[in-house]
Amino acid sequence: MNGGSDGAGSGGGPERVASEETTDVTGVSIDLNADLGEGFGRWTLTDDERLLSVITSANVACGFHAGDAVTMRRVCALAVEQDVRIGAQVSYRDLAGFGRRAMDVPADELAAEVAYQIGALEVFARAAGARVAYVKPHGALYNRVVGDEEQARAVVEGVLLAGGPLPVLGLPGSRLHACAVEAGLPVVAEAFADRAYTADGTLVPRGRESAVIHDPDTVVERSLAMARSRTVTSHCGRTLSVRAASLCLHGDTPGSVELTRRVRARLEEAGVRVEAFT
Amino acid sequence: MNGGSDGAGSGGGPERVASEETTDVTGVSIDLNADLGEGFGRWTLTDDERLLSVITSANVACGFHAGDAVTMRRVCALAVEQDVRIGAQVSYRDLAGFGRRAMDVPADELAAEVAYQIGALEVFARAAGARVAYVKPHGALYNRVVGDEEQARAVVEGVLLAGGPLPVLGLPGSRLHACAVEAGLPVVAEAFADRAYTADGTLVPRGRESAVIHDPDTVVERSLAMARSRTVTSHCGRTLSVRAASLCLHGDTPGSVELTRRVRARLEEAGVRVEAFT
Amino acid sequence: MNGGSDGAGSGGGPERVASEETTDVTGVSIDLNADLGEGFGRWTLTDDERLLSVITSANVACGFHAGDAVTMRRVCALAVEQDVRIGAQVSYRDLAGFGRRAMDVPADELAAEVAYQIGALEVFARAAGARVAYVKPHGALYNRVVGDEEQARAVVEGVLLAGGPLPVLGLPGSRLHACAVEAGLPVVAEAFADRAYTADGTLVPRGRESAVIHDPDTVVERSLAMARSRTVTSHCGRTLSVRAASLCLHGDTPGSVELTRRVRARLEEAGVRVEAFT
Amino acid sequence: MNGGSDGAGSGGGPERVASEETTDVTGVSIDLNADLGEGFGRWTLTDDERLLSVITSANVACGFHAGDAVTMRRVCALAVEQDVRIGAQVSYRDLAGFGRRAMDVPADELAAEVAYQIGALEVFARAAGARVAYVKPHGALYNRVVGDEEQARAVVEGVLLAGGPLPVLGLPGSRLHACAVEAGLPVVAEAFADRAYTADGTLVPRGRESAVIHDPDTVVERSLAMARSRTVTSHCGRTLSVRAASLCLHGDTPGSVELTRRVRARLEEAGVRVEAFT
Repeated sequence: MNGGSDGAGSGGGPERVASEETTDVTGVSIDLNADLGEGFGRWTLTDDERLLSVITSANVACGFHAGDAVTMRRVCALAVEQDVRIGAQVSYRDLAGFGRRAMDVPADELAAEVAYQIGALEVFARAAGARVAYVKPHGALYNRVVGDEEQARAVVEGVLLAGGPLPVLGLPGSRLHACAVEAGLPVVAEAFADRAYTADGTLVPRGRESAVIHDPDTVVERSLAMARSRTVTSHCGRTLSVRAASLCLHGDTPGSVELTRRVRARLEEAGVRVEAFT
Repeated sequence: MNGGSDGAGSGGGPERVASEETTDVTGVSIDLNADLGEGFGRWTLTDDERLLSVITSANVACGFHAGDAVTMRRVCALAVEQDVRIGAQVSYRDLAGFGRRAMDVPADELAAEVAYQIGALEVFARAAGARVAYVKPHGALYNRVVGDEEQARAVVEGVLLAGGPLPVLGLPGSRLHACAVEAGLPVVAEAFADRAYTADGTLVPRGRESAVIHDPDTVVERSLAMARSRTVTSHCGRTLSVRAASLCLHGDTPGSVELTRRVRARLEEAGVRVEAFT
Repeated sequence: MNGGSDGAGSGGGPERVASEETTDVTGVSIDLNADLGEGFGRWTLTDDERLLSVITSANVACGFHAGDAVTMRRVCALAVEQDVRIGAQVSYRDLAGFGRRAMDVPADELAAEVAYQIGALEVFARAAGARVAYVKPHGALYNRVVGDEEQARAVVEGVLLAGGPLPVLGLPGSRLHACAVEAGLPVVAEAFADRAYTADGTLVPRGRESAVIHDPDTVVERSLAMARSRTVTSHCGRTLSVRAASLCLHGDTPGSVELTRRVRARLEEAGVRVEAFT
Repeated sequence: MNGGSDGAGSGGGPERVASEETTDVTGVSIDLNADLGEGFGRWTLTDDERLLSVITSANVACGFHAGDAVTMRRVCALAVEQDVRIGAQVSYRDLAGFGRRAMDVPADELAAEVAYQIGALEVFARAAGARVAYVKPHGALYNRVVGDEEQARAVVEGVLLAGGPLPVLGLPGSRLHACAVEAGLPVVAEAFADRAYTADGTLVPRGRESAVIHDPDTVVERSLAMARSRTVTSHCGRTLSVRAASLCLHGDTPGSVELTRRVRARLEEAGVRVEAFT
């Protein structure tokens, strides 16, 4: 994986995640989310402690694609110390594949497994003095529920099973968001500063050469545009509107924490409040 | 395994679980507990539906030695329908060994894993309109915490992490119960109608020929004695006092549900109220 | 799953597995294959010992969807005693889903995992005095490689990695068979006596009402027709040619061993030699 | 874990792994072994490629504590390129604990699981043009079989099941070596240049302050003494004889590859042939 997100990948489908009508906003705020706690036992991946000093929402792995109970406990405690929101990063049951392999999981299993993961994380969030504040699917599940109605419904059912009306963080225009809205759950849209957008406002599919933006300066400037003017420049130069309350950043590659820190500094310098969406 | 319980086995140690001072009690009540939901995916083991019509407390597997999310959800719903209490049957992480292999799990891992399992089950208990009502360790962990101070403390820490002051169901005289009491948790003692007791009031270790009582009539009569007069006859003929608020029954062997049904019928016929301890 | 096979299911695609040109054959022989060793740890599923007294080729689970090392060792020893061939029943890594959930496993992972499973089984086949004699994919992988070129190639690559030119047992007309032939591997076609065929010679997809034939007498007679005259009657009454060297039978449902025994008795009574294809 | 080996740890028991009678040897050779392929799916740990350019025997993880099929295949191919021997690093089934938690696995399970792992690795060794050349237990199993007769026998039985008379690499004086010798298997003794030895010739137990030697220069010089004069200086200053055909080095900590490179350079500079023991 070349520095990219696990989500928002191949399954993007035709949904538009950005559009041409632009709006300039002042006094804006933005949330920064990243995946955390993605080690397992002896293995570590994300630099949880440093990331938590920069982001505002932590997508905490719940044990199905990564994340063990000790790590979940520690990350929740650290998140509360740093006033970072705790989100359940729910996944297919697939440690060997890190949740990156699409699976035809029957809806009842998927719903129950989503609830199971939220429940497990809730224990550690509460023990740290907080609550699970939102849910975000991981990897192949994230991509699948962009367009797969059945699995999208199953994820929403899992959230409902888990009890509270938790916000669902995901791709604007996704089936997941549509199903969540239908079920009365709040939805929160996210954007990707390091991913190229087409003129249609969809993400350039991973695998294409220009899909991921590697230049740090560009990522920083795109983050600012996304947060302040709610726009992004498509890979063919068009200015598109992008309505995202959260920017997804990555913490599992060399330099990613430093880049996240630069993004945050630039946002704050420009007067954007960096704060959790919930 | 020859029809026996997973717990109360090899690690019994020298603790006395019964004593010679007898007390005759009238108007008594007793709880009947059994392990449930011990399938995994395609595999089934316990006859959950029929067991739930007989017992009063269900030790529900939480996914570490057995139990998948779909089964947990279904068992919790059925338990609530039958007014059966839901207990978290926490275990070592060991699907391949069904939690029957003692493991030197570091205390912090064990504590966090116990909390994780309780949290996962809590979701399904709540979704069914109930709560996790107690905790009982499974298999090798049950045996280990009879005498192992460190792991006993870790289990108690896990229960505390999970939040509520949940009762801990286990062997009277165990380190687990001592640690739970010390931490301010309620403890509930259980007895085994199908296990032989020594004159000292300890369980005859599994593996010895006479450890398990196979004759159904004997098991029924011992259940009655344990519930009504709080006594058990040791394998050498002594009458011992046994103070247990719950009888542990088994649901994973042919005829076990029928035997449980007979135990319950005999108890009720004799005027013992069969009701949950909590 | 209502008594059916895990394979030959939803992914049947348009391939014809039977055709209208019939051939009457005398002095024929047929192989009977079934899935075995599909327990895991505490859980059992298939009645391995009884099945081995009836079939000629055992598809032994290798630990990825079912099957632990002790079971693999025992089944191999029993198979050799009964002069039954040992086949590697390779699967996606999915104990929780019993290998029944299609997974987008990258080709290099799938190939290596297939080889891993064959290698693990080979140890027990050799220890019993035999060798792994063939390979058959399980469940969702079986269905996927009917039409999925990439995964079909990956399975074949896994077989080649494992070393010998092992025959690949599967659905006639499948991509798996095409890829195997291309790679120089022998292929063996199987037919399903308890599955309905369309007039086009494809399997009626599972899920349709008439997909599975439940009447034992009908299954027995179809087995005989498949073995002796190499024909099957389609669900609309057409007589189709079906060229299968092996009949797939099922061992995981009540009565399945008895049905298999009846099939074998009927075949032998009619002068069909029941013998392994290899 | 502070830069130490997984093996040769807590379970050292009273066996002497070094003794006072010293022998000066010239024209000696020594093997360098290290654990490799200890990632799993998305997670990496050991710097396999660089390590393989320095060591002579690679203890390859087989999937039970670490190691996936893709990694096993890749490491075997690289090992053959570098003329490094491939050993099966067999472990308890414990991905969550990295095989570092002692487990009471019944002997028949342990034997079968050891054979399973060897068989799986053999496929990739053969595909690379080599064979599994030896077996070495990992982590908690390594420590357990120093003194546990039953598990030591089970490991040996697993090696025998796997077929060839494979050498068993381990601690001199261990039960494992005794059982292997009894069963007719070759044994190879290893020493630890970064571990302190007592005056009795046993390893200073991990956990004690001075158990692990962190100074690189000291490790290099001890390696040389172990290889050339077959001696080691105990932590109280005594010169002890240590008969080891292999030195165990570590590849999972920062600087460990560089240290291994220095050890090898120093050995070669001093005229010690660095070569595989088999």
